Amino acid sequence: MQHKIYQYQEFQEWIEKEIHENELLKVRSPYQLYEPVKYILGIGGKRIRPALVLMAANLFRDKLQDFVKPALAMEVFHNFTLLHDDIMDDSDLRRGNPTVHKKWNDNVAILSGDAMAILSYQLLLQHSGRNFREILGVFNEVALQVCEGQQYDMDFEGQSEVAEDDYLHMIQLKTSVLLAGSMKIGALLAESSMEDADALYDFGLNIGIAFQIQDDYLDTFGDPVHFQKIIGGDILAGKKTFLVIQAMKKANQEEKKQLTAYLEHKELSNAERIEKVTALFKKLDIDRQIQEMQLKYYHQALEALGRVNVPEDRKEVLFHFARKLFDRKY
Amino acid sequence: MQHKIYQYQEFQEWIEKEIHENELLKVRSPYQLYEPVKYILGIGGKRIRPALVLMAANLFRDKLQDFVKPALAMEVFHNFTLLHDDIMDDSDLRRGNPTVHKKWNDNVAILSGDAMAILSYQLLLQHSGRNFREILGVFNEVALQVCEGQQYDMDFEGQSEVAEDDYLHMIQLKTSVLLAGSMKIGALLAESSMEDADALYDFGLNIGIAFQIQDDYLDTFGDPVHFQKIIGGDILAGKKTFLVIQAMKKANQEEKKQLTAYLEHKELSNAERIEKVTALFKKLDIDRQIQEMQLKYYHQALEALGRVNVPEDRKEVLFHFARKLFDRKY
Repeated sequence: MQHKIYQYQEFQEWIEKEIHENELLKVRSPYQLYEPVKYILGIGGKRIRPALVLMAANLFRDKLQDFVKPALAMEVFHNFTLLHDDIMDDSDLRRGNPTVHKKWNDNVAILSGDAMAILSYQLLLQHSGRNFREILGVFNEVALQVCEGQQYDMDFEGQSEVAEDDYLHMIQLKTSVLLAGSMKIGALLAESSMEDADALYDFGLNIGIAFQIQDDYLDTFGDPVHFQKIIGGDILAGKKTFLVIQAMKKANQEEKKQLTAYLEHKELSNAERIEKVTALFKKLDIDRQIQEMQLKYYHQALEALGRVNVPEDRKEVLFHFARKLFDRKY
Repeated sequence: MQHKIYQYQEFQEWIEKEIHENELLKVRSPYQLYEPVKYILGIGGKRIRPALVLMAANLFRDKLQDFVKPALAMEVFHNFTLLHDDIMDDSDLRRGNPTVHKKWNDNVAILSGDAMAILSYQLLLQHSGRNFREILGVFNEVALQVCEGQQYDMDFEGQSEVAEDDYLHMIQLKTSVLLAGSMKIGALLAESSMEDADALYDFGLNIGIAFQIQDDYLDTFGDPVHFQKIIGGDILAGKKTFLVIQAMKKANQEEKKQLTAYLEHKELSNAERIEKVTALFKKLDIDRQIQEMQLKYYHQALEALGRVNVPEDRKEVLFHFARKLFDRKY
């Protein structure tokens, strides 16, 4: 039997097309409310979440057109959280463009974000499957966890030290559950067994954690030629990344004091602070340890994907996707 | 056959009980995210929206316990909009207590509000009826319209004159559709015919408009002894109420200039401004005209309720509710 397996790029194209043509995004007024929605959806992004929905569904089904709208729901929800996170973090730029609250103002970003949250439910409702309640249940739970993750993240900013487990928990909620939920919803849209849907949730969760660890690693140890941000940005911002948390766990009293001083005290030049913190990370073997940690989650993701009861050739796109995330150097 | 017809107050008690005992509101963490949710739900309010859900359902059913959670969804959604509106309007007080963004800060109010929006969907999902998708469709549409109404309201603030139809449209979206949607959802929960559900939607919509007109009227012409706010607050704030819009329509050039001056120029004392604007309203017969306008919507509401195909004795609670709203003097 001939299967129709799509590639990531094809899914991206479907999503871009849906963003431009979807009735919900086209016809409603007032302009002032929906223009920021179109703006944030229009300035790009890798469309990872909807692509995951469609990749997961493609494990079980060849016909996927009915799933594009609920897949887009995940992208719209994600962008809703970006609009509000950018206000809370007072960020100026998003994907190289002015954030909504900078281009317009806070009120616009709050209200357009609210509309996006509701729009994501409307897009989800455009799917007509029998297991709609189950899908909505997964979506609700994940959506609430994303808010909880953002709250923990803000709380951590005011704390001098964060325990590794707490940081992992925060990352799971803030980032990974939405990837995991996208996988599970994709599977449920295709009416997979709950066992398979749960295995795919695990895949997404572990890929998400590995991805975030990689993010923290690359910010300090990435390839300066290809990395799109400044190497060492997290160090200068004094962020409590995986690197800092691991280092604080391993450091002796003297090293702890040094690390805290480098991260907090701004008398040193930027280059010096980055250099000294990076040297300390290396001395404590944090770079190697972090990569091992990432490998652990990557393997857990692969193991979860292995549990899904479909022919191995159907899984190739997802294995390839995971590999690409793991191998990225920037 | 003996019917079990409940009174408004009984519904209020059920809702208060559900707020205190609902698992969703009780068990989730972090505390920092959910404390403001419990706070805003705990400082009172008349619980009109969930009561409307249950009153509508009670037209068709005697057993209502399964509908309390979806009824609470309407209250949680309403309070989510209050949290965000209070940031946008920079309001200090809500129901006589500090607003969430004043008691905590803007970020807390944004994020806890977001969580409430999602919680309202979770509460809705706790109903197990067959027509769940229909109910969710009504909820989504109403929710989006509430956002659109808030946007129009903010836009009007920057405009020197607002047309009557535009103001009515804004009021419908911002306030009335949530009352209308509560009625329709209540009917659908009880598995009424779509005809009856739509008639109850019309009842809620017209009651909502009549209520808002009454609000504007009482702010200037209310009984100063019983009115809980200062009489004339809208005049001092220069708000474009129904009174102002009607007056601007009816006034000649000279009177228009006077009204604008009284509303905008702050050289006069507060008492003088209120006195002069009120006198102008009376001269233009606006007080009588506004009461007639309210009566029109009140009658339309009663007519819609009359269309619902249930024995008249079941409708008494709703007729009584409408009468009480219409007769209020403060």
